[in-house]
Amino acid sequence: MNRDVTDEAASKEMDTSMCMSPSHDHNPENLPYVHKVGVPRRQNLLKQFTASVKETFFAGNPFQPFKGQSRLGKFVLALQAVFPIVGWGKDYNLARFKGDLIAGLTIASLCIPQDIGYAKLANLPPQNGLYTSFVPPLIYAFMGSSRDIAIGPVAVVSLLLGSLLQKEIDPVKDALEYRRLAFTATFFAGITQFTLGFFRLGFLIDFLSHAAIVGFMGGAAITIALQQLKGLLGISNFTRKTDIVSVMRSVWGTIHHGWNWQTMAIGISFLAFLLLAKHIGKKNKKLFWVPAIAPMVCVILSTFLVYITHADKHGVQIVRHIKKGINPPSFKEIYFTGKYFGKGFRIGVLSGMIGLTEAIAIGRTFAAVKDYHLDGNKEMVALGTMNVVGSMTSCYVATGSFSRSAVNFMAGCNTAMSNIVMSCVVFLTLEFMTSLFKYTPNAILASIIISAVVGLIDVEAVSLLWKIDKFDFVACMGAFFGVIFASVEIGLLIAVSISFAKILLQVTRPRTALLGNLPGTAVYRNILQYPEAKKVPGILIVRVDSAIYFSNSNYIKERILRWLTDEEEQLKKKGLPTIQYLVVEMSPVTDIDTSGIHAFEELYRSLQKRDVQLLLANPGPVVVNKLHASKIATLIGESKIFLSVADAVRYVPKTEEP
Amino acid sequence: MNRDVTDEAASKEMDTSMCMSPSHDHNPENLPYVHKVGVPRRQNLLKQFTASVKETFFAGNPFQPFKGQSRLGKFVLALQAVFPIVGWGKDYNLARFKGDLIAGLTIASLCIPQDIGYAKLANLPPQNGLYTSFVPPLIYAFMGSSRDIAIGPVAVVSLLLGSLLQKEIDPVKDALEYRRLAFTATFFAGITQFTLGFFRLGFLIDFLSHAAIVGFMGGAAITIALQQLKGLLGISNFTRKTDIVSVMRSVWGTIHHGWNWQTMAIGISFLAFLLLAKHIGKKNKKLFWVPAIAPMVCVILSTFLVYITHADKHGVQIVRHIKKGINPPSFKEIYFTGKYFGKGFRIGVLSGMIGLTEAIAIGRTFAAVKDYHLDGNKEMVALGTMNVVGSMTSCYVATGSFSRSAVNFMAGCNTAMSNIVMSCVVFLTLEFMTSLFKYTPNAILASIIISAVVGLIDVEAVSLLWKIDKFDFVACMGAFFGVIFASVEIGLLIAVSISFAKILLQVTRPRTALLGNLPGTAVYRNILQYPEAKKVPGILIVRVDSAIYFSNSNYIKERILRWLTDEEEQLKKKGLPTIQYLVVEMSPVTDIDTSGIHAFEELYRSLQKRDVQLLLANPGPVVVNKLHASKIATLIGESKIFLSVADAVRYVPKTEEP
Repeated sequence: MNRDVTDEAASKEMDTSMCMSPSHDHNPENLPYVHKVGVPRRQNLLKQFTASVKETFFAGNPFQPFKGQSRLGKFVLALQAVFPIVGWGKDYNLARFKGDLIAGLTIASLCIPQDIGYAKLANLPPQNGLYTSFVPPLIYAFMGSSRDIAIGPVAVVSLLLGSLLQKEIDPVKDALEYRRLAFTATFFAGITQFTLGFFRLGFLIDFLSHAAIVGFMGGAAITIALQQLKGLLGISNFTRKTDIVSVMRSVWGTIHHGWNWQTMAIGISFLAFLLLAKHIGKKNKKLFWVPAIAPMVCVILSTFLVYITHADKHGVQIVRHIKKGINPPSFKEIYFTGKYFGKGFRIGVLSGMIGLTEAIAIGRTFAAVKDYHLDGNKEMVALGTMNVVGSMTSCYVATGSFSRSAVNFMAGCNTAMSNIVMSCVVFLTLEFMTSLFKYTPNAILASIIISAVVGLIDVEAVSLLWKIDKFDFVACMGAFFGVIFASVEIGLLIAVSISFAKILLQVTRPRTALLGNLPGTAVYRNILQYPEAKKVPGILIVRVDSAIYFSNSNYIKERILRWLTDEEEQLKKKGLPTIQYLVVEMSPVTDIDTSGIHAFEELYRSLQKRDVQLLLANPGPVVVNKLHASKIATLIGESKIFLSVADAVRYVPKTEEP
Repeated sequence: MNRDVTDEAASKEMDTSMCMSPSHDHNPENLPYVHKVGVPRRQNLLKQFTASVKETFFAGNPFQPFKGQSRLGKFVLALQAVFPIVGWGKDYNLARFKGDLIAGLTIASLCIPQDIGYAKLANLPPQNGLYTSFVPPLIYAFMGSSRDIAIGPVAVVSLLLGSLLQKEIDPVKDALEYRRLAFTATFFAGITQFTLGFFRLGFLIDFLSHAAIVGFMGGAAITIALQQLKGLLGISNFTRKTDIVSVMRSVWGTIHHGWNWQTMAIGISFLAFLLLAKHIGKKNKKLFWVPAIAPMVCVILSTFLVYITHADKHGVQIVRHIKKGINPPSFKEIYFTGKYFGKGFRIGVLSGMIGLTEAIAIGRTFAAVKDYHLDGNKEMVALGTMNVVGSMTSCYVATGSFSRSAVNFMAGCNTAMSNIVMSCVVFLTLEFMTSLFKYTPNAILASIIISAVVGLIDVEAVSLLWKIDKFDFVACMGAFFGVIFASVEIGLLIAVSISFAKILLQVTRPRTALLGNLPGTAVYRNILQYPEAKKVPGILIVRVDSAIYFSNSNYIKERILRWLTDEEEQLKKKGLPTIQYLVVEMSPVTDIDTSGIHAFEELYRSLQKRDVQLLLANPGPVVVNKLHASKIATLIGESKIFLSVADAVRYVPKTEEP
């Protein structure tokens, strides 16, 4: 009965269409379709190849503006492509500079104490942190295209670099070699970033899923915060390991004779102040500058306090010495041979990738907010160049900082000029003010780092992951616990593995669905989603929801046959007529390879043995071409390939119904 | 004008549907749709999880028959699941045995000379080849579910094993250690196969694409044939390397003083005979037994010839000695500790995987021809068990042989009983006839191997690859040249890498298409495939052809925006009205993860800035659920999610048109 409804509706629709397009001459008896399945003309092989390379590597079509330009125009465009500052510099004015100046000064006040603390995380002297906030931001300002990112050392990369480097060289005993290896790693981090961008392989970083990053960042934040207990409690004998078990054992083991109450008093009270400032900034977005300048205020207050109370004589550890003057060259310190070359390379690739992930995520976020386009590959070239130059000027791996970029944005930055302003402030600090930090207690740096990394723990995002996608949640938790209980690398490995497992699942076990007719229409939909959809007697309609490739062709074939077997068993139980036609709805099948073609051939033969006819509905252009190239279209029968499921159902002769 | 046609057609279809389903009460003014987008009830988390685990690992639903069975019934079913022989043994009869006997005798006559030759390829004594055709086929006959596969040593695995093993141990100098490592590798090959099957990870072997296998097999066949030049030309100093350059240098270097003309005469004349037999068998399928028994005939004739002419005194190398008696135990020879443990493990995993790939491919092929179901995972358990037992009884890695399985099939085998018959013949040979092979010339073994591996070069498949899918062709050629010019492992590595690259491309750069309305229908199709499809003024319809995951979410967002920008530019040039609505057709989008949700949120905001409204058409059940869970459905507006593109287009008020 349902079939009748469908047919009637369909034929009415057909009638309609017939009056609409009287030019089509067709015989309604034999060929009741207005449109045939389109077989696109096969493209030239070279054309096809270039088109696909273009889409893969030059998705943004970066060469389009060059078309039809004069030589000079092309040169200016090329210059602008490499140095976006040439582009925005032309229209730069005082109004814009005002915003950039305020933003630059704000992030400078935030970055100076952070830099000193992050350098400690990387087991490097404090000045190296400051160096990293001087040269790289300058380079980036010329080459980068993000308007909001704030460049410099960041907590997670510092931790990763520090924990990887200290496995190779002892940072205290062999300080010089350690620093050399750090520069080597920085150099190769830059080379990695540059290479990925230059060869337009930027899409590779998309393989670290959002979920994995959330978990990794959260885990790293907790690990970093735990490391700060050393400074905050004034413990001198602290473990080198980063996992929570070792750290907590180290902390509790020293409770009776290792904690320093003066240090604790300073550290904890200022931490409370910083967290309060953060809370204020969150409550009232206009007071964003409160948490931004709070760290500098803490540093000034606490330094003054220690200086007048001589607390350093009572076991409160202080920064003591920051080398004066700007970045010394370090090109000669990079290992280009020897056993540390390979190690530096490996560490560099890893920290370069993490740095990239962070910077691109930040860049994209703010680009979306302000709605400007960000070419990820161009960004990578800029980040790579700045790290290569950085490695030759005593900097370690720099990237975009989440917290400082947010402050930069809220302070009203307009262009990368704010990075130049920040860079100038750091320059002045290095030249004239390093001695002021002598009495700054380490506990303050620990509090500043803790209050900074707290923001990396994104509970809201985790709860959203749980709500939306359980698999993402598992990936997130895997990365999180991996970082906390094992190490940063293990956490990263877990994150990448789970991300990959998801991709593998996607390509090996695609979904399929049984379709039914929505009463009164020519529309066929998943019967699980639309309970009102009715199956058509004698016809089984299966939709395959993926490209059919070697990785899933066999599964798809077997799944379709299983649908058929299950359905026939049910029909038999109910004493209903069996299936005579199997319609495969191929709209979602965007591509098919030789394995897929073979699978269809096998499916066809299996169906023949069961006396079931195979009909195909709406294969896409690529699929149609390949069905024809492989002669399988002839095997199945050209006349059994339809524009839509409705057409295929209409094709089934009524007389065959019982 | 086109819009009018669509609308008219649509409204007529609507009218039709209204008369069809008078029970639906709706107001045609506000809600002109019969069916709303279905929001399936969210499933219980545990249920969802088990369902997805079941679909991933237990796709064939192997536990279904157990339902509602008595305890005894369950026991019998379980026994049958592990030992399919219990199942088919019940109905076994004389008529079936007749077929199996003939098939078994035929493959036995083919396998005995092949075994001796393949053992040479693996640098093992000839008896080990025969051992491998005795125990493993017996085990398989009890546990395997393929009815046509012929088990034993095969050329490609022998070559792979031999070339991997001789890198670790010299097979001539340290023959005992070499053999022990071979058994170790065999043991771990079996463990690998068993583990994959037991944990139902069998889908992993699907990652070696059909194209890659064709190339790999072809390359291996040529490499094996080249190796046989040693035996065929009677060269004594032959290179250990397998790449074509080294081998040809070795061959030409010995042309003046290393070739033995008697050997060549025997070898080449019998090779010609074998190839002729093969040709006859191919021409007339009924004469399949000609190439099947030809090798045995060759062995008998040539052995007799050498015996009476004393050709072995003139430099014709002969087999000399095959140890009499069946397999000695070798459990104690397996390395479970020491440096060879790790190496044996690695080699075992690799050769186990290759053996698996070959056996499963054969099993599937014949299962499809005879239309019976083959559970890949159960097969792996059977293959794994047989290799583990084999490693303890002096066998090396056994698997299904392409050539012998085809003969088995053509000779009319009905069940795995033919393997038992073959096994018995090999048993008799080992016990009573080994001395008969003393004078068999090595050249004959070389000819037999060459004529066997020629069948692995599948030119037809390669030309099909070229026709259907250029990427597959590249993968095939990569594997082929990798094996020929570098080594078997390099070829395998290339094959796997290219297969993976294809998967990565698939998941990072999914296709998108612009849709247009087919005049006179409510159907929307790709305008590139259907040139008659007309764009709807003011509306851009984009179809996304893939699940939206972290690996492609960003690309998809940017690609949609690029479609919009390109289209608007074109419209501007022509002076036509701009786009006001963007319809995303989501039928092919089967799933979306948190990254995808974020991308849609960003897309929505970008569109808002451009004054373009976002409409969604036909999201699937999973996507609809996640859109709701993430509140993005509320952001976009529930009323802007439609059942179909036609509905979405109908929604756009006509008054907004110019």
